[in-house]
Amino acid sequence: MKIYVDGPFKKRHQQYLRNALPEEDFTFKTEIEKPEDQLKTLLEADILLGNPKPADVLQKAMNLKWVQLHSTGFDIYQGIRIPAMVTNMKDYYAQPCAETVIAGIMSLYRGMDRFTLLKEQHQWLGYSVRSGLRLLRHKRVIILGAGSIGKHIHKILQVFDCDVRFFARSAKEEVLRTPEQLLEAIPSADIIIGCLPGTEQTRGLFTTRMIHAMHSDAIFCNVGRGNLLEDENELVAALKEGKIGGAVLDVSAKEPLPADHPLWDCPNTVLSQHTGGGNKTEIEGILDFFLINFRRFKSGQPLLNMIQLEKGY
Amino acid sequence: MKIYVDGPFKKRHQQYLRNALPEEDFTFKTEIEKPEDQLKTLLEADILLGNPKPADVLQKAMNLKWVQLHSTGFDIYQGIRIPAMVTNMKDYYAQPCAETVIAGIMSLYRGMDRFTLLKEQHQWLGYSVRSGLRLLRHKRVIILGAGSIGKHIHKILQVFDCDVRFFARSAKEEVLRTPEQLLEAIPSADIIIGCLPGTEQTRGLFTTRMIHAMHSDAIFCNVGRGNLLEDENELVAALKEGKIGGAVLDVSAKEPLPADHPLWDCPNTVLSQHTGGGNKTEIEGILDFFLINFRRFKSGQPLLNMIQLEKGY
Repeated sequence: MKIYVDGPFKKRHQQYLRNALPEEDFTFKTEIEKPEDQLKTLLEADILLGNPKPADVLQKAMNLKWVQLHSTGFDIYQGIRIPAMVTNMKDYYAQPCAETVIAGIMSLYRGMDRFTLLKEQHQWLGYSVRSGLRLLRHKRVIILGAGSIGKHIHKILQVFDCDVRFFARSAKEEVLRTPEQLLEAIPSADIIIGCLPGTEQTRGLFTTRMIHAMHSDAIFCNVGRGNLLEDENELVAALKEGKIGGAVLDVSAKEPLPADHPLWDCPNTVLSQHTGGGNKTEIEGILDFFLINFRRFKSGQPLLNMIQLEKGY
Repeated sequence: MKIYVDGPFKKRHQQYLRNALPEEDFTFKTEIEKPEDQLKTLLEADILLGNPKPADVLQKAMNLKWVQLHSTGFDIYQGIRIPAMVTNMKDYYAQPCAETVIAGIMSLYRGMDRFTLLKEQHQWLGYSVRSGLRLLRHKRVIILGAGSIGKHIHKILQVFDCDVRFFARSAKEEVLRTPEQLLEAIPSADIIIGCLPGTEQTRGLFTTRMIHAMHSDAIFCNVGRGNLLEDENELVAALKEGKIGGAVLDVSAKEPLPADHPLWDCPNTVLSQHTGGGNKTEIEGILDFFLINFRRFKSGQPLLNMIQLEKGY
């Protein structure tokens, strides 16, 4: 079968796939020089592993039988209609994303961001930092989104005896269901964590009024999509004026952040540069999942992690 | 009763104590100018709240009926014999210390230390950091010491599905009991966390041979006492030469670290400046505990957190 691969894979990953499936006809985008030849190969392929850009090239690939995305989110392909089955990485990134959010919050609470800078300066402050430290234990948290990332974060927060509420359309856990209920709950939250997918319903969902409803020690986190905020400039202002306690942002409206972006200069802010899903063996895990699904595809078994592109989440 | 107070308490804390116990005769060390007058007041007091220095002034305080230390550790008073009952803060610092160690480890694993420096430079690296990130999940951990800090760390690590072993003289948990067993276990550990008190038995317990037995991605942490290492210079060398993966040090042999200390320049190292026990309301918590014990003292009930200075732990 003709398999076209378009993703952040290195030479050793190409070798790994070819060794694993020596009978199959792999072509890697990085092996083809001209964009028009890349497109031609994609259109002739039976299977696609990866996330081609721009998104609408996928719309033309009517020959594809199966698309394995290397991401969980697929909002950029929303609305695309192709006959192929499409699968994603579902909850593959949930644990790393949860760990990054917890690491970011604890970095602020336990002073790790300050200690990193003090270490650069060889400066011992000790007690004056100590008296400002906070504990994660017993914090009141609102998690926006009860998908796999939200659930992983919830599981970790339980060991810190946090009081967690979800904002979600449907979930077994105790939930806030409407923006009005969310707004009402915000003043009593110490931490708010966004882990919603990017859809029309979540765009701008966290309004400026909600930022203003946060208390002065509260932390805003986002490991979902950068368009969750109605107005990111209002978050910047709240941070700079000390109206909220801090932020942990894995995503932002603009990525990569340009060097003159005001977020860089916000105090008490962790910018994790969209690495939340990262892990040393991230690519190997994707390839192994592709191989599992490929064997199911060949033998006619139902594929794992089937999605519908039209829905966009 | 005459109560002498020697600790990091501010004006508002003095007021808090005097308001809580208006009948009692409080003197705060910071209210007395001359050292000889401070000592005189201590020697006349019935009760001491705090940790006087140098340690041997306590040896002279034969009039004291009760000493409430504001620390958990009391190694500097080891061997002192006074007729007073002595109480400490026992597991008061366990949760903050555990949170600082976990924050430090996750800071290294999830790149928070690097993101802090990149933020200073307004520099977006994104993917190149992402591909080096590690997960706390499933890590193999050895905790040195099964006291309250060790147990709190263990509880948190369980939610990350870590494989934890204790090095301890006595504990219900699966344990390594001898330095030989510890040395044998070290090569398969990803994280080693020292949270032992400072005693003759723990001084230099973590030998240079043990540092050399760690694998190249392993992290050494210490939130106990700075004299745990046989030779701190060997840790510095292992970090600088990349023979181990990193370190999270709340304590060191010398504190505060002088500006020219080589630890400042060690890569992949978190130096949390002996703040592990810290928390915004740390002092208030100590005062409240003193008040609880004071009421027990007055009514002849057994005091909480009784210790024996001679033992030193």
